[in-house]
Amino acid sequence: MTQNSLPIGIFDSGVGGLTVYRALHDRLPNERFVYIGDTARVPYGTKSLATVERYAIENSLFLKRKGIKLLVVACNTASALALPRIREATGIDVVGVIGPGGRKAIEITKCENPKVGVIATEATVSSQAYAVAINRACENAVIMQTACPLFVPLAEEGWTHEAETYSIAAKYLEEMREFQPNALVLGCTHYPILREVIQETVGPDVKLVDSGEATADEVVELLKKRGLENPHEVAGDRELCDDLDHFYVTDAAERFARVAERFLGASPARLKALELYSGDEWQKPDR
Amino acid sequence: MTQNSLPIGIFDSGVGGLTVYRALHDRLPNERFVYIGDTARVPYGTKSLATVERYAIENSLFLKRKGIKLLVVACNTASALALPRIREATGIDVVGVIGPGGRKAIEITKCENPKVGVIATEATVSSQAYAVAINRACENAVIMQTACPLFVPLAEEGWTHEAETYSIAAKYLEEMREFQPNALVLGCTHYPILREVIQETVGPDVKLVDSGEATADEVVELLKKRGLENPHEVAGDRELCDDLDHFYVTDAAERFARVAERFLGASPARLKALELYSGDEWQKPDR
Repeated sequence: MTQNSLPIGIFDSGVGGLTVYRALHDRLPNERFVYIGDTARVPYGTKSLATVERYAIENSLFLKRKGIKLLVVACNTASALALPRIREATGIDVVGVIGPGGRKAIEITKCENPKVGVIATEATVSSQAYAVAINRACENAVIMQTACPLFVPLAEEGWTHEAETYSIAAKYLEEMREFQPNALVLGCTHYPILREVIQETVGPDVKLVDSGEATADEVVELLKKRGLENPHEVAGDRELCDDLDHFYVTDAAERFARVAERFLGASPARLKALELYSGDEWQKPDR
Repeated sequence: MTQNSLPIGIFDSGVGGLTVYRALHDRLPNERFVYIGDTARVPYGTKSLATVERYAIENSLFLKRKGIKLLVVACNTASALALPRIREATGIDVVGVIGPGGRKAIEITKCENPKVGVIATEATVSSQAYAVAINRACENAVIMQTACPLFVPLAEEGWTHEAETYSIAAKYLEEMREFQPNALVLGCTHYPILREVIQETVGPDVKLVDSGEATADEVVELLKKRGLENPHEVAGDRELCDDLDHFYVTDAAERFARVAERFLGASPARLKALELYSGDEWQKPDR
């Protein structure tokens, strides 16, 4: 198998990265994907730097062993905290979601002194990774960041239009609404699920940036630049979650399939639950 | 050190077990406690049987190595799914929260054909552990169970009296309110934090059962029965989280201390973050 025909790896802390998978799948009909969701240890957003790094490296090395030409870190928290260590550990091309999300926010504001909002997990906000990425793209940008811890469980519950979700969003985004950013980065893979609630809360003039979609755009460019596109056309129509794409979870496969159905309207044709991690390999527990 | 003067071990998936620690501390002023919260892998409530068993055994063996005379499994999910395997692996006296909670519910209903409600995590509800425990205490009991996934993040956010919390409780507990149980078991260590909201939602005639308090009552009895009480009076007043009690977390100690302050009004004098698990010992990661 040549390098070009290898799949693209996608790593997420759980099910949220499926929104990034969809964005990649839509843009790259000739590519295959292999996805790992670390459902045995989700969520990452409330965990420490050392722990997130360790988990991210374990998952990335698992995908590397499967054979991939490029690794996309779909999890914002892992992208914010662990990207340098993932690159060092895997030695392959790695794309995170923070840089693309930050650049996209600046690009769409089209102003000299843009105001940019970021909503994300506690760990991502504390890391300042988005602030660094946004200021690298435009040093005049004024940035406001807010953690929205309840958005992840609300998205996982599928409460996308409930009155309680609107009310919680109004509470979290009160200052953001006053700040009136030109662009607001959805800095967690779950947040696009609540896109309509968020848009209504901050008002129609705020442009929402889906970091996953921005990342998918950059992956398309990177494959071209590196000459890594798959030259073989895939026969027939590709569908989301069809049997060319392989999904792995570290726990609770049925739950993953159920949430995938809710997020994508389809559940994976090929989904495998890995046994627990013990040392240097995902393997069966010793029992 | 004699067996009697050893501390009591408390294991929880995270910070929720502090409510059980408080109940034990209040009743047993001469006892010392050693607590582990598995914050690197919290929550357990959405994870599978195999994973919960594995994590529970690792944490229980850690406490056994510290030297304890009795192990209290404060986590409802671990109690529901893993108690037999924990007993087998540790070979010491182990008390879970499900049996005591179920027995207490029957005891306080004081009727021949009681109606008992249970609210808990998805995993605990699916396990049917409470239904088994309640029917063992009273075979005529009619039982209704409901999972309330958003209660844990709401409690961790400290949203104990917010309008959104009332509204979410009304949604989850609509059928429970119609069922009008004689007793309602709070089958997750986080739920007592939302006690007032839950009571208002189901109405004043429903008796709430805190499994953690029921467990603390049974631990007092068990220590007496086994002759395992600490015969030495502790000098001076004991305070919650004073330096006689030792706390361990597997990640993010500052966050644990912050939530402890919110739950108990005090944060641990002795709190240690363990490094990540790799094989047979909690130890430093290989980096």
